[in-house]
Amino acid sequence: MTGQTGAGQAGQVIFTRGGVPESLHRVHVAVVDAGRRQVAACGDADLVTFPRSSSKPVQALPLALAAPELPGDELAIACASHAGTPEHLAVVARLLARSGSTVEDLRCGTHPPFDPAAAADLIRRGEQPTPLHHNCSGKHAGMLLACVLNGWPREGYTEQPHPLQLRIRELHADLGGVAMDDVHVGTDGCSVPALALPLHGMARVFARLAAPAESLAGPLAPALERVFGAMTAHPLLIAGPGRLDTTLMSLVPGLAAKMGAEAFYGMALRETPRGPLGVAFKVQDGGERARPHVALAMLEALGVPVTAELRALAPNVQYNWAGREVGTAEVELPLRWA
Amino acid sequence: MTGQTGAGQAGQVIFTRGGVPESLHRVHVAVVDAGRRQVAACGDADLVTFPRSSSKPVQALPLALAAPELPGDELAIACASHAGTPEHLAVVARLLARSGSTVEDLRCGTHPPFDPAAAADLIRRGEQPTPLHHNCSGKHAGMLLACVLNGWPREGYTEQPHPLQLRIRELHADLGGVAMDDVHVGTDGCSVPALALPLHGMARVFARLAAPAESLAGPLAPALERVFGAMTAHPLLIAGPGRLDTTLMSLVPGLAAKMGAEAFYGMALRETPRGPLGVAFKVQDGGERARPHVALAMLEALGVPVTAELRALAPNVQYNWAGREVGTAEVELPLRWA
Repeated sequence: MTGQTGAGQAGQVIFTRGGVPESLHRVHVAVVDAGRRQVAACGDADLVTFPRSSSKPVQALPLALAAPELPGDELAIACASHAGTPEHLAVVARLLARSGSTVEDLRCGTHPPFDPAAAADLIRRGEQPTPLHHNCSGKHAGMLLACVLNGWPREGYTEQPHPLQLRIRELHADLGGVAMDDVHVGTDGCSVPALALPLHGMARVFARLAAPAESLAGPLAPALERVFGAMTAHPLLIAGPGRLDTTLMSLVPGLAAKMGAEAFYGMALRETPRGPLGVAFKVQDGGERARPHVALAMLEALGVPVTAELRALAPNVQYNWAGREVGTAEVELPLRWA
Repeated sequence: MTGQTGAGQAGQVIFTRGGVPESLHRVHVAVVDAGRRQVAACGDADLVTFPRSSSKPVQALPLALAAPELPGDELAIACASHAGTPEHLAVVARLLARSGSTVEDLRCGTHPPFDPAAAADLIRRGEQPTPLHHNCSGKHAGMLLACVLNGWPREGYTEQPHPLQLRIRELHADLGGVAMDDVHVGTDGCSVPALALPLHGMARVFARLAAPAESLAGPLAPALERVFGAMTAHPLLIAGPGRLDTTLMSLVPGLAAKMGAEAFYGMALRETPRGPLGVAFKVQDGGERARPHVALAMLEALGVPVTAELRALAPNVQYNWAGREVGTAEVELPLRWA
């Protein structure tokens, strides 16, 4: 590890009502530069935690390595926590067909589409969601194709001992600069391994994504570049209409951003006054409503212009069901710079 | 204040994944007995916070005082955060008509029904939710009737200077054993004043509800008794199918329980080895998923038998979308007994 600054005062997002604090979220942040050096932190940058879907750019690397000619939208959907709109499903179906797989091969499980309009459409048509609607179906379709292209069995592709999942764990360790033993293995919402590693490790992963060529030789650098290119070219595929990743990437040049469940967040920032940076943060209680507030505060702290359009993602003033102003959201991020 | 034990170690609900902690909620608890004495606490019992809808049994008191013959189901719906099912709406409509009011008089705003089946039904019929579907519509209908019966104007019934809202603030101070100046005023999600007071004050309010006759003279005691009776006789009206208040009250004899937004909780327990008790707790970050875990741990700590049916409300084992076991929920409540 280089440039560790240890644990310190955590950040906070405080929701107030009538001037009185009502609820409070604690936040841990790590920032790493293109030279893999930790340049800033808040709270405990060594916190071992689960990036969940923020791992998807890494989980898509075996696919990006094995299929260098894959269309960008299909690589993007493999990195996505998509909203289950018809546009998302069409790209998933195309990627799934490439490995000769069908919806029956997907092991992600089923939940209603995240997109409210898409969910309401299903209800209106009297239809049940399928595994295609699961936000991870693109990742699973990409994993199936990675297996076929690498000559690995499709069977058991979600299980820990499968060569694909072992490769993904190795990639987290290598790109994150942590030992394999420090990458713990749980099970994710979609049944693939969920990996846990120190927060600074995930910041390092996103720093690699921000600057692949500066720190990597061999085929990994162009594969990371393809992942970065696919994500930034297709922000709507990565999340969906009105969702944080999509809006941030649409508005901030040179940003690949990926949310994970339980309020994890990763950002690969290519254009900051300090050069390319990787950012990872975790809201300690998993409170996802605090995420846009922390993301914008971090952009601001790192010298990325925060426009009014961006600011609208994390409004300071909070409103109730009747549209009345009821409180504020305050962000405190006491960053320690290395 | 009697029996204050000050701030101490907070409780925690920890969600783990693959044996590694993933997210953590901090919890503050206060317990008060029928003699208004604080008998136990965890974290900061002096925390000034918003009970939100856990205030509803107090907000319904002016109605219970003015309409002693009101049917129990209508008093219950005035104490409810209901789920917007047809059963809920029928009782709200009946209560609303009693004051000659209509849906246009309700100032609560509009949101889709909390009950997923009721929400899906609206979508299928192509209808929009109305203020009747708002979880607070019964409270608002009750407030309108309280105004009419007291000779107060219906106009402005949600505003701070209205005599109804002043009376409700006084009741919080009196029943909670705190000064009026210590009852802060914000605005709630449904536009009535949201009051903030120390956690031990709300525990005292719920202790009053558990044992009205033991500590109050005058008409307040029978009015509190009617509120307790209405809540416990109609658990399905207080919340809705499968929801925490409803299930707890259906399974625990002598319990009136009321949730508030941002993970506040109040319980009036009539039958414990220590006699009647009032409990109030707040999950610091507003994380509502931690609430059933804390509620059950408190029942257990206070000597109320927790059956397997109750335990199912807050399962220790957590599952993913595919039904696989992925982690646990651990509760630590280091109660300090007075």
